[in-house]
Parts: sequence; C-alpha cells; structure tokens
Amino acid sequence: MLRLKQQVLAANLELVRAGLVIYTWGNVSGIDRERGLVVIKPSGVPYDKLTAEDLVVVDLQGNVVEGRLKPSSDTPTHLELYKAFPSIGGVAHTHSSCATSWAQAGLDLPCLGTTHADYFHGSVPCTEDLSAAELASDYERQTGLAIVRRFAGLNPEYTPGVLVRSHGPFTWGKDAGEAVYHSAVLEEVAKTAALTLQLNPEAACDQALIDRHFFRKHGPKATYGQ
Amino acid sequence: MLRLKQQVLAANLELVRAGLVIYTWGNVSGIDRERGLVVIKPSGVPYDKLTAEDLVVVDLQGNVVEGRLKPSSDTPTHLELYKAFPSIGGVAHTHSSCATSWAQAGLDLPCLGTTHADYFHGSVPCTEDLSAAELASDYERQTGLAIVRRFAGLNPEYTPGVLVRSHGPFTWGKDAGEAVYHSAVLEEVAKTAALTLQLNPEAACDQALIDRHFFRKHGPKATYGQ
Amino acid sequence: MLRLKQQVLAANLELVRAGLVIYTWGNVSGIDRERGLVVIKPSGVPYDKLTAEDLVVVDLQGNVVEGRLKPSSDTPTHLELYKAFPSIGGVAHTHSSCATSWAQAGLDLPCLGTTHADYFHGSVPCTEDLSAAELASDYERQTGLAIVRRFAGLNPEYTPGVLVRSHGPFTWGKDAGEAVYHSAVLEEVAKTAALTLQLNPEAACDQALIDRHFFRKHGPKATYGQ
Amino acid sequence: MLRLKQQVLAANLELVRAGLVIYTWGNVSGIDRERGLVVIKPSGVPYDKLTAEDLVVVDLQGNVVEGRLKPSSDTPTHLELYKAFPSIGGVAHTHSSCATSWAQAGLDLPCLGTTHADYFHGSVPCTEDLSAAELASDYERQTGLAIVRRFAGLNPEYTPGVLVRSHGPFTWGKDAGEAVYHSAVLEEVAKTAALTLQLNPEAACDQALIDRHFFRKHGPKATYGQ
Repeated sequence: MLRLKQQVLAANLELVRAGLVIYTWGNVSGIDRERGLVVIKPSGVPYDKLTAEDLVVVDLQGNVVEGRLKPSSDTPTHLELYKAFPSIGGVAHTHSSCATSWAQAGLDLPCLGTTHADYFHGSVPCTEDLSAAELASDYERQTGLAIVRRFAGLNPEYTPGVLVRSHGPFTWGKDAGEAVYHSAVLEEVAKTAALTLQLNPEAACDQALIDRHFFRKHGPKATYGQ
Repeated sequence: MLRLKQQVLAANLELVRAGLVIYTWGNVSGIDRERGLVVIKPSGVPYDKLTAEDLVVVDLQGNVVEGRLKPSSDTPTHLELYKAFPSIGGVAHTHSSCATSWAQAGLDLPCLGTTHADYFHGSVPCTEDLSAAELASDYERQTGLAIVRRFAGLNPEYTPGVLVRSHGPFTWGKDAGEAVYHSAVLEEVAKTAALTLQLNPEAACDQALIDRHFFRKHGPKATYGQ
Repeated sequence: MLRLKQQVLAANLELVRAGLVIYTWGNVSGIDRERGLVVIKPSGVPYDKLTAEDLVVVDLQGNVVEGRLKPSSDTPTHLELYKAFPSIGGVAHTHSSCATSWAQAGLDLPCLGTTHADYFHGSVPCTEDLSAAELASDYERQTGLAIVRRFAGLNPEYTPGVLVRSHGPFTWGKDAGEAVYHSAVLEEVAKTAALTLQLNPEAACDQALIDRHFFRKHGPKATYGQ
Repeated sequence: MLRLKQQVLAANLELVRAGLVIYTWGNVSGIDRERGLVVIKPSGVPYDKLTAEDLVVVDLQGNVVEGRLKPSSDTPTHLELYKAFPSIGGVAHTHSSCATSWAQAGLDLPCLGTTHADYFHGSVPCTEDLSAAELASDYERQTGLAIVRRFAGLNPEYTPGVLVRSHGPFTWGKDAGEAVYHSAVLEEVAKTAALTLQLNPEAACDQALIDRHFFRKHGPKATYGQ
C-alpha cells in the first residue's frame, strides 16, 4: 500500500506541476485491484501540504479503510469508474481551463489532429445533464454512472477520458500517473481544438490519420517508444 | 494588530504569486471588527518591497490611525464594503486580465459550471456606470456605494465578488486571504466562461446543479473539506 | 554615462523578466539630454549575455560615440522620438504578442477601462502604412517620422506609446525603466481589450471615467502614490 | 560526432525551456553532412532524462549506426527533409499549441507583420492531406515527401518551416539550434496571427515591408546583428 500511496501522491503533485489545478482543486486516485482498495486524495487539502499519510484508503463501496481524513468528495465518481472499467488503475479529475470550457459548452471534444489521436481514438465525449432526481440523491455517484452510461459502446482504453457536462474532465489510465498524463494531454488538445475551430470552423481530421496515429502508440502493432 | 498586518501582507503577496497583479496594481485589506480598524496596502508601493510596517491602518471614516505612508487610493471603496457587509473580514482588488475584461464588457459573469458554483451562487454582477456627478465627487467612495447598490437583494456571502464596470473586480471573504482566494477563483472562472461562450454561445448551467455545488461547500449542510 | 548605462541595461533585462521579448527581440534606450547622447542595446545580442559594456552610445545623428558593437537596427526610430518629444528620457520597443496583434490589425487600441486610462489618456494610436519610397529609403528613420506624424495634436506624455502598423509597439517614459513599464502596461491592456471586444463588440469607456483615472495619476492634481 | 550530439541535446532541451513541448513530445535532429549521418532524439524518452548518449545516429537511409535506443518515430520525415534541402543542418518538430492549431485548421499561416517577415519570407505553407495509400504505407516518410512536394517553387532557406496538415509544425535551420529557434518564432507568429485576424479579419501586410524586413536579416544585404 505504501508504494501505491507514493504513486498517488506523486500523481497528485504532478497536477500542480503541470498547471492543471490551483489551491485544492482536482484529485487523483489509484487502485490495488487484488485487494480492491483505492487510495485517493483527502477532501480540501492544499497540495503543498499533502503527504502520503494524508491519503485515504477506501474500499469499492466507499468505506474508509485507512486514514484520518475524509476522502475527496468526488470519491464515489472514482469508484464507479473503477467498477465499470476493470482495466484502469488510476483516475484523475481537474478543473483545467480549456477542458472545463468544453465541458461547460456541453460539447464532445472533436479529434482535430494527431496530437489528440496519439492518445484518444476519436472525440472525447461529454456526458448528458444529470436529472433533478440524480442531483438530489447521491450526486457524486450519479456523476460516475452518467460517465459509464456515456461510454456504452466505447472502449475506455481507447478513450481514456470524459467531459462531465457543466463540470469538468475526468481521465484515467493504467495507473495514477498515466491518468494525470491524460489530463495534461486533454487540456492541451482542448486548448488547441478551440483555437483550430476559431481559425477554421470547418476543421476536421481524416479518420484514417486518426487510426494511423492511435495505433502507432496503442495495441499490438504499436511502434512508438522503446 | 501585528497579526492582522501579517495576514494582510501575506494576502497582498499572494496576489503576485497567483499572477493576478503586476507592478503596484491591486490591493488587499483586512479588518479588525472589534476595534473598527482596517489594515490596507499603501498607495503605489511595489509588492517586492512591501513590508508589514508599510501597511496603513485606517478607521472606517478613512482617517489614518497608524503608518507613515498614504493608504491605497481605493481605500474608500474598501471601507464602504466593510460598512455595508458586516460579515466580511477582507477585501481584495485586482486588474486581473479576464475578470477585468468582463468588467470592461459591462456584463454580469454568468455561472456556467461547477467551478464557478463552488464559490459564487450564480452570476457575479457588474455594477452600473457611475454618473458624471459621482465621478466628479469622491469617486472611490462612490465606487463602493455603486457596489453596495448592485447588491440590493444579493447575499454578499453567497456572491463574494463584483465586477466594477469599466474597471475591474473586487472580491471579499472572511479574511484578507480568502478575499484573495476569491480573486483567483474569479479570474479562473472569468477565463473559462469566455472560452465556453466562444465554443457555445448558448451555454448555460442548470440552477439545480449550481445549488448542489454551492451548498456542498457553504452553509449548514456543507460536506466539503475536513 | 555609467549610471545611464546601468539604467538602460536594467530596463532591457526587465523586458525579458516581464515576458515581453524572446531571444534578441526588442530594445530599450535612454538619453542623457544634457550631452545629447543616447545609450541603446546593441543589435542581435541575446539578453542573457548582455552587459553594460555591450551597450552602444550614439549621438542624435546616429553616430557611434562609444562601444565596440553595432547599435540596434531600430536606433534611427528611437532618435526621431527623442528629437520630436523633448520631455521623454527613454524608449522601448518590443514585439509583445497582444500589442503586436493590434499593430498587425492596423487598429488604434481603444481605451476600454481604467487600467488603460491609468497610463494612456485615450486610444493608443496606430501609424499609417509607410509608402514604397519610405520603405526603400532609410526605413527605420521613416518609421520614427511616421510615429511623429501620427502624434500631431497628441501629447506624448499623455499617450506614452504607439502601435507601428504591421510591426509592433514603441513606448516611452521619463527614463528607460518607465518606457519598459509602459510596454508592459500596453501589452496587458492590449490583451484585455481584445478579450473585452470578444465578449462585447460594443464595449466602450466613458470619457469622464478616463479623465478621472488618468489625472488621478498624472498632472498637477495627481493623488496616486506616495 | 560528440559535438553534434551535444548540439542536438541542447536543442532538444531548448524545446522544453521555450515551452514548445511537454512530456516526450517533439524531437530535434542535426546532420553531419560530410559523413551523411543524422543525430536524433530517441523515441518516447522524457526530456528530463535525456543524455547525449541516448541520442541515436542514423544514416540517410534510416539505418541505426550508433546508439542503443530506437530513434524518434518521426525520423523518416527528418531524413526526407535533409535529402531534399541540402543547405539545412537541423530539423525540429513540435506540437506547439498555436502552430498546431493552424496545421489542424489546414491553413497556410499568412505573414501579417514584421515579426513573421524577419524569419519567414511570406506565408508558412500547410501541406495537403496524405492519401489513404500514403497513410497505409511508410507514413512518416510520406509526411516528409508531402512537405517536399509542398515546397516546389519555394526556397527552404527563405521559408524555414512548414505546417503538416492535421499534425503540426516542422522547422529547420543551419543547425539543430536554429531549427528550434525557428520553432519558437513560428509558435509566436502563429499565436499573433490568430489574434490579429480575430481583431481584424481583413488584416494583411504589405509585400514591400515583408521584403524590407526579411532581407534586413537574410541574404547578402543583411544589416542586422553584429
């Protein structure tokens, strides 16, 4: 558990370094799949004071198993993602400016070039609005369920992130570090897509080019890296 | 008074660290409610030379009680806010780029998502233009009165900031530090709202979601934080 | 002369610190009015290698009086400004992003709020295109003359900067440091004005408010600062 | 070879310092024309761990001559540029935000002012889409060939960069360092051009002014620098 805590701590601090969060915004978690336990940032603690001991361990039902602080208020969202997407090992949530703007605009983020296609195999989807009943009940868990619903027919490994409508992005990956990495990429492509469409509202990217780049980095025929 | 001065100094320096001011722009104050005394930045002193001893102590009528420098030229605006909003303990003023742009545009900043709703329960209002007579008389005090007028029917604890038309933002909070924190949040949501509306001019946020987020962090049913 | 060189060196380095230039872009000069000598950055020298000894001293006719390097290629522009505007003591030139965009757009930068009005008493004017003949002759001097022509009827102390069409900003002040300060302010208000007009294409600022702010900081009735 | 490796390492690290890349994005190479060998960044290695020994030496056919790591996946693109443009000594590739946005928009980047004209003698061209057949075969080499095709009739010394459609910029220069320098300039002028056209969709720059600035810095009559 110590090693997972250190990974999750490092991933949380990477949110700050990458300029994706200010103050106490955002949170990252990682899961130990064998034990079914999730390590997550505590609620409302500033990053510059965060230590590995502050991290909270919860089970997949949200019970605190270890730690003296309350877990992030977004914990139930993380848990729904871990339950629905068995191959993921980490989840990150930010309010990064450009990804949040797309989420607030209520738009899927279109894939407009290879930077995007290197990480996301097509659009990054935006969820539907929650109903009044969902908002009034266990809201954070409903947010997770809305993400899972939106991913019907989508492969979460091919689309490692989502825009929660009127809220902001959640991303994931094989571990907490990769989840944050995908948050940083998502912010960059959200920024670039906005400027691209300002320059040319008709801009689009050839699906064959998207495939070419995505599968250069992912799947059995990947050739990128060492 | 020393402790309040140290708080106000730290809050002023946080303006710089958060990228909200350059050179001598902006100012932060804090109030000692029991003694009815306000500590505020002196006029035109660069932040990198500012010390706790440079801070000026004024009473609520604007008389300098302590300090060898002139108080910020915006002091009368701060004082009107302290007088009209008895629950606030600190006030901050910046010319941060995006909040100032909304103020210059003469528009209320709409609440387009949860980042905004976590801090401001609805739009951040923009004041009316001052009249020629108001401009010609005690202008800085009239600015404060225009803010107070704009808050008729609004709860300053639920909307801890305002856009002064053609000028820039003022924010407040329970102390000087929280006032600056609200300046940083306001700048971020002003930036994000502009990009959101560029992407989708029809963007809006469900009032029920605004309520859900605001009251998750504020009021008797708040659950966020430790 | 040593003291002027140190001032001009510091002002050149402030261009970098304020994010107004990259690599060798931009240049700042200062004048010794009694001796009629101008100290200016050498051409094409990176800022991180610049020393006071590298600075070049020229007379108002452009003759190198001291220094082993060639002066900035923009020197003749600086000299025309010193000759036409006898009260200025320093000149700065940058290609800062937003001011340059307004110059490239060929538009006067309108005064949309008090941040602008604190330093520039109304629009920052954009020059006319140079003619083919002017471009083909002593181009840099012609640039200076075009600025001076554009200032017919304008007070250079009330408008301490200009946008050279299709090129970028020149600013000035009582010394080299203030010239750079005005470059930083101009970049900020150019950025804010662009965003303001994106939010509200009809945005404008009341002339009485412009007067109120400008004369709070300038002229015999100034009250700002210590 | 050691000296070339050090140059190429420094140029790769300059990509990070100049804010043009994040994580492992981008790559720079340099060529030893006498030996016909190219030194290039390895694939997928983070910049903060990159050493001169990690760099890969390939011949112009792409065979690895030295190094224990795989070369950048974009190596075949670099090689086509070296083969077609005999005067260049270095190539850089980034996904910098604004240049990439123009590439994704599928638009030539117009020359709107002297900042651009100081380095690029007119528009920076955008390539055509690759065909399905090109995408399916040796894609990275086809990217290089598409650039070379786009430069029919253009002088690569006068236009030291290109926008690869739906992808991003490649730039070049007399060595690896100058290639990166041109990447930084391209990003800046891409940013400024976007803002210029937002302010004035009709903005353009006089060809005589473009010529005046370009040839002030380039060719036999250059006067800029020492």
